[in-house]
Amino acid sequence: MNYFSSNFKLGILGGGQLGKMLLNDTRKFDIYTCVLDASTEAPCKIASNEFHIGDLMDFDAVYNFGKQVDVLTIEIENVNVDALEALEKEGIKVYPSSKTLRTIQNKATQKLFYVDHNLPTAAFSRFAYTSQIQDTIDNGGLSLPFVWKAAQFGYDGTGVKIVKTIQDLEGLPNVECIAENLVPFKNELAVIVIRNASGETKTFPVVEMEFHPEANQVEYVICPARIDKKIAKKATEIALKTSQAFNHVGLLAVEMFLTQDNNILINEVAPRPHNSGHQTIEASYTSQFEQHLRAILNLPLGRTDSKVSGVMVNLVGAEGYSGNVIYKNIENIMGMEGVTPHIYGKKQTRPFRKMGHVTIVNEDVNEARRIAEAVKLTIKVISE
Amino acid sequence: MNYFSSNFKLGILGGGQLGKMLLNDTRKFDIYTCVLDASTEAPCKIASNEFHIGDLMDFDAVYNFGKQVDVLTIEIENVNVDALEALEKEGIKVYPSSKTLRTIQNKATQKLFYVDHNLPTAAFSRFAYTSQIQDTIDNGGLSLPFVWKAAQFGYDGTGVKIVKTIQDLEGLPNVECIAENLVPFKNELAVIVIRNASGETKTFPVVEMEFHPEANQVEYVICPARIDKKIAKKATEIALKTSQAFNHVGLLAVEMFLTQDNNILINEVAPRPHNSGHQTIEASYTSQFEQHLRAILNLPLGRTDSKVSGVMVNLVGAEGYSGNVIYKNIENIMGMEGVTPHIYGKKQTRPFRKMGHVTIVNEDVNEARRIAEAVKLTIKVISE
Repeated sequence: MNYFSSNFKLGILGGGQLGKMLLNDTRKFDIYTCVLDASTEAPCKIASNEFHIGDLMDFDAVYNFGKQVDVLTIEIENVNVDALEALEKEGIKVYPSSKTLRTIQNKATQKLFYVDHNLPTAAFSRFAYTSQIQDTIDNGGLSLPFVWKAAQFGYDGTGVKIVKTIQDLEGLPNVECIAENLVPFKNELAVIVIRNASGETKTFPVVEMEFHPEANQVEYVICPARIDKKIAKKATEIALKTSQAFNHVGLLAVEMFLTQDNNILINEVAPRPHNSGHQTIEASYTSQFEQHLRAILNLPLGRTDSKVSGVMVNLVGAEGYSGNVIYKNIENIMGMEGVTPHIYGKKQTRPFRKMGHVTIVNEDVNEARRIAEAVKLTIKVISE
Repeated sequence: MNYFSSNFKLGILGGGQLGKMLLNDTRKFDIYTCVLDASTEAPCKIASNEFHIGDLMDFDAVYNFGKQVDVLTIEIENVNVDALEALEKEGIKVYPSSKTLRTIQNKATQKLFYVDHNLPTAAFSRFAYTSQIQDTIDNGGLSLPFVWKAAQFGYDGTGVKIVKTIQDLEGLPNVECIAENLVPFKNELAVIVIRNASGETKTFPVVEMEFHPEANQVEYVICPARIDKKIAKKATEIALKTSQAFNHVGLLAVEMFLTQDNNILINEVAPRPHNSGHQTIEASYTSQFEQHLRAILNLPLGRTDSKVSGVMVNLVGAEGYSGNVIYKNIENIMGMEGVTPHIYGKKQTRPFRKMGHVTIVNEDVNEARRIAEAVKLTIKVISE
């Protein structure tokens, strides 16, 4: 198939920031790209060749959109998988596959997948409803503390709660869920695996997700991770094994915990460009977005090593501000060394909404980390 | 002025490949951008917020477009300068200024500018019409060989001819022109100067434009130039002095000849993103496009040093092919190390038309140069 011709059409389900960054590379290669999203204000509305409005969870919307393209990919997991399966049967190339997405969309199924494939993950129990947890605790079948996770539709930390006391269960939605052992970890690591349809496979360097000590939120993604080489090798091997188990095509971001006793446990995976790979735009020989494109179009993969070190800081809406967004002090951070802001183009901010990210590149990872902290203390995402 | 708000509008005159690459960065910063171009097939048609159709040489088209924006820039020099002057008087920020463009648009005026500002350039004579050259040669006022250059509307080598014999004058258009001493040069160098409205000034490293020994065409742009440090310093100083003379805001690409006896002579300048800076996208801490944007929006400038070495190869239409373009063997070059093709999105190829470029990055400039040669021998821009 000639991807570089106007007869070829790539479809993307979802028109958010990941799609927007992917469009930079479809534009670079002049690949004709169609986007489906429910919102007329989606960041992908401009820069795509065709922008279609439709509900990503609706069978007909996804099916009818997918019928028009040659290769279909996603930038968000919450899409109608039955439609993807129907499209696959009709010969449309769908990456990630409906099978992979079905496994990943449900956290209980995803955890069982790891167990079935002998991939390390924290022990867990599965519940049809949150209300069943109390009984299990009473019966001695589950002990506090644990991590409650909704099985479906979680996104960026929503649908996750650390349950330390019975009272913490109050107010949780009564949905299918898992209760996972609370593993004390030193570090959260991530490895992005890239695999094209011919099976060529590469990995980006291990990154470290540094947590805010109090807020328990990822503050910085740091590449390379400041960890022992043996641990990096182990994390990479587990990520590769996970990609093989899924027989995955495209990007697979594998998030892992490094436990206090240096074990590695898989937390979760994302079969698409991922927050833990944003620094690749500036730091790597090939960005994760370009790699995803190369993989799903079955082109040779690019180099995955880094030109320089990179640290990424998410720009999220400040607490107490909702409405038309203002990036206060953005001029100041642009005067800092090696700093590039990425503004996603969402018009409205609200507390903790992902509005953009900032990459800091430097020859020295510790210097990049130091500048990242200055960035974080300077820029504020507020409203008019 | 808050550039990062939807009240702000940036205007770009010209919707070609330079505009297209600039749009990657206006998109990255979410800066609202309007483009004016005569063609409905211009590469900037998608990815701009507003795309307007109009003739860039028409006063009304440029003036009416410019009235709607806050800052106006160009991606091509051949625009109506009277309209820019009128816009400046009404408070629109125009970078480059009408004054700079007026000087540069006419090669005779440009050459006189260098002389007036004590900037080194090859000796030349000015003619109102090409037909006057013959008389001057007969009178002993000009000797062969020389370089004939049309004073206006030249682009990428058109409007330039090396005149070795009287016969070479035949067929040249009878227009305002200059006859420039043919200087035997070792190398063509270029330095891009960036200056923002506050006067902050930086330079990219000196690049080398390697010529094909027979075709006398630039084949490779090489960064860093493989020249003596003293010569690089001298070239940078001349570029800075040129930028100061123009009191320039934005990018100024200064093309220079390095003569056999190590003198540096200014060939010409371009007050915009330039072919000699394309490798900055992959090789530099900050691309020339982002720097242009930072400069014209009066933001702090980014780092101009390189992460790695970069070599750029232009993708031009092969001789003997016209029509719907095909990038033959593009998959093969994408399998080479550190190779990124940029396809501009022009649907029709014709001989020597600039259809894209390829950047090769590597830790070692000689290795990048070696891979660049393999790229050049592999990919072919042909028609269906």
